[in-house]
Amino acid sequence: MGDTTPAGENGRDAERGLAEEAGRLADIARELQDSASALISRAWNDEQALRQRALALDSDLRRLHCAIDSAVKNGSLDPKNAEKMDEELYRTRCVLSDTDVAFLLPSKAHGRFLKMFLGPVNVQTPRKEFQLKLKEEYNKYRDRTAILFLLFPSILLVLRSWIWNGCFPVLPVQLYQAWLLFLYTSLALRENVLRVNGSDIRPWWIYHHYCAMLMALVSLTWEIKGQPDCAYKQIGVQLFLAWAMMQGVAMLLQNRYQRQRLYTRIALGKAKRMDVVWGETAGVQGQLWLLCPILFILQVFEAYVGVLLLRTALVGVVSEWQVLVCGILLVVMAVGNFINTVQTLVAKSRIKAKIKRTKSQ
Amino acid sequence: MGDTTPAGENGRDAERGLAEEAGRLADIARELQDSASALISRAWNDEQALRQRALALDSDLRRLHCAIDSAVKNGSLDPKNAEKMDEELYRTRCVLSDTDVAFLLPSKAHGRFLKMFLGPVNVQTPRKEFQLKLKEEYNKYRDRTAILFLLFPSILLVLRSWIWNGCFPVLPVQLYQAWLLFLYTSLALRENVLRVNGSDIRPWWIYHHYCAMLMALVSLTWEIKGQPDCAYKQIGVQLFLAWAMMQGVAMLLQNRYQRQRLYTRIALGKAKRMDVVWGETAGVQGQLWLLCPILFILQVFEAYVGVLLLRTALVGVVSEWQVLVCGILLVVMAVGNFINTVQTLVAKSRIKAKIKRTKSQ
Repeated sequence: MGDTTPAGENGRDAERGLAEEAGRLADIARELQDSASALISRAWNDEQALRQRALALDSDLRRLHCAIDSAVKNGSLDPKNAEKMDEELYRTRCVLSDTDVAFLLPSKAHGRFLKMFLGPVNVQTPRKEFQLKLKEEYNKYRDRTAILFLLFPSILLVLRSWIWNGCFPVLPVQLYQAWLLFLYTSLALRENVLRVNGSDIRPWWIYHHYCAMLMALVSLTWEIKGQPDCAYKQIGVQLFLAWAMMQGVAMLLQNRYQRQRLYTRIALGKAKRMDVVWGETAGVQGQLWLLCPILFILQVFEAYVGVLLLRTALVGVVSEWQVLVCGILLVVMAVGNFINTVQTLVAKSRIKAKIKRTKSQ
Repeated sequence: MGDTTPAGENGRDAERGLAEEAGRLADIARELQDSASALISRAWNDEQALRQRALALDSDLRRLHCAIDSAVKNGSLDPKNAEKMDEELYRTRCVLSDTDVAFLLPSKAHGRFLKMFLGPVNVQTPRKEFQLKLKEEYNKYRDRTAILFLLFPSILLVLRSWIWNGCFPVLPVQLYQAWLLFLYTSLALRENVLRVNGSDIRPWWIYHHYCAMLMALVSLTWEIKGQPDCAYKQIGVQLFLAWAMMQGVAMLLQNRYQRQRLYTRIALGKAKRMDVVWGETAGVQGQLWLLCPILFILQVFEAYVGVLLLRTALVGVVSEWQVLVCGILLVVMAVGNFINTVQTLVAKSRIKAKIKRTKSQ
């Protein structure tokens, strides 16, 4: 019987084989689905158990810290011994914040800025190694940025006197402003991501980038076409470019210096590696004699440009609202930068004094 | 002896107690660190084992699909049965892509755009429920957006004839343009995130948002101040606002409709839930008689505004480069939208024909 319809018989065999294979794959998929769900929920449960322990340890650390403080105050504990205990507590706290344990503790909230741009996506990575990669990449990004920050405005300024006869054409300046807008947006986003991943970046440096974003946006709408007298109308742009160049130099110096300091501090076990010691301040120590003056000069210059713009707007020669807003933003940024730099320096000198005291005892 | 210095003795006791507590906490921290590292690496290993199986299943599915196709071609398999098998394979594939298994398969690359703004952060969430929450939030965001898309330009147009005597003041229009820039940036970022999380959104709709971002940026630098004749100079802005209003209506209709369709299709097990059937096209079926005309009219109008801008720029009445660039971008977007809508419709009608064939057999 089979011999009468060999092709049909073969066809049916092939068909059966294929159908069986399809069924087998469907079974495997179902098994796999169950295993994956089980894996995820098991991992979740294990995580929760560890999380409970991490949270308990975290509150115990806080409690002990308070106990030591009050013991020193009521005289039942020698300050020298308290110092040693505090150091041990700090090391323990570093284990919580710098190792794989970190992802168990509640992370900093994602913040409105990230939610506004990305929606409710989770950007926290549990693995410490990825967090460090993120930080590394951020440092590299800042290096590249600093070079552009130096190159872009200087090319514009050079071309202005060589080719453009003292008058900026509109397009290159607007390209530069669009680049600034993108740059500050991406810096603000990246710093928010680092913050979620355990970085201790001072909030001001992120706010500073929000201000800078706003300024780049406003400057884009700012007419710089030199209708009656370009040299006069473009004085603001020119000052702004000079300030940007100085910022480029400061950023380059700082990036190199901060990274060195950070590596040293990581080696000494004194810093959490996710500390972003952003820009114009923090982490300044040792090479302070070089960095601090540059930072303060930069801030004074920033405020000067701001005041100049404000004067132009208020005296009424250039009555565009953009001039006023840019002026206000520059002054706010300069004052904020100054306050934060001083606060960082004060905090640092306190730590230094403490170290000295400990050593001399 | 102890009685002679009771305070000192007590102090030493307290000190010893605190030091012991500090030591105990340090031990707990070390244990916790080991447990967390062990948990992470165990989860990683389990994941890798499952991943191997998921990848094997994935390639088996591909192989079987090819085998069925060639069996149909050489006549050893009845097309009707092949159809059934294909359906079973599709369901199996859905298990791979729509359940917790999905995170085991390699995700789509993060793409340059995300990396540019965020750095190398991982935005993929392993848990399907979070992915769906992400999608839900994206839909809600689009709803809110559509309403603003409708409100913002209509308020501008109404105020123009009621209060502003036919001439737009610069600031409100620029605020609108800045909002557009933010909106398209966030939409592009969110869609890239959805893509990483398994959404099948057509790449064109993301490119479309890049174009729109660029246009919003360019339009910000565009002088609309009505110096000699505002009615003439602002014709472009006016057309653009009218187009934006139409887009708002279309978006509202689509959002409501797409979500309904999506829920139906999820219920039928026919769609992967991460399919983003964005905007101006895809998923159009059933209410086609209402949506399709609106989409095509919108595209024609988009191209019309683009051509109008191009003519203005080339005839030379308004010789700003922004007019030219905006014109080109609008035409590119209109053509791209048209091609993609037609492609989607063709794909849909093919599926429909297939279903009809299967039913009639």
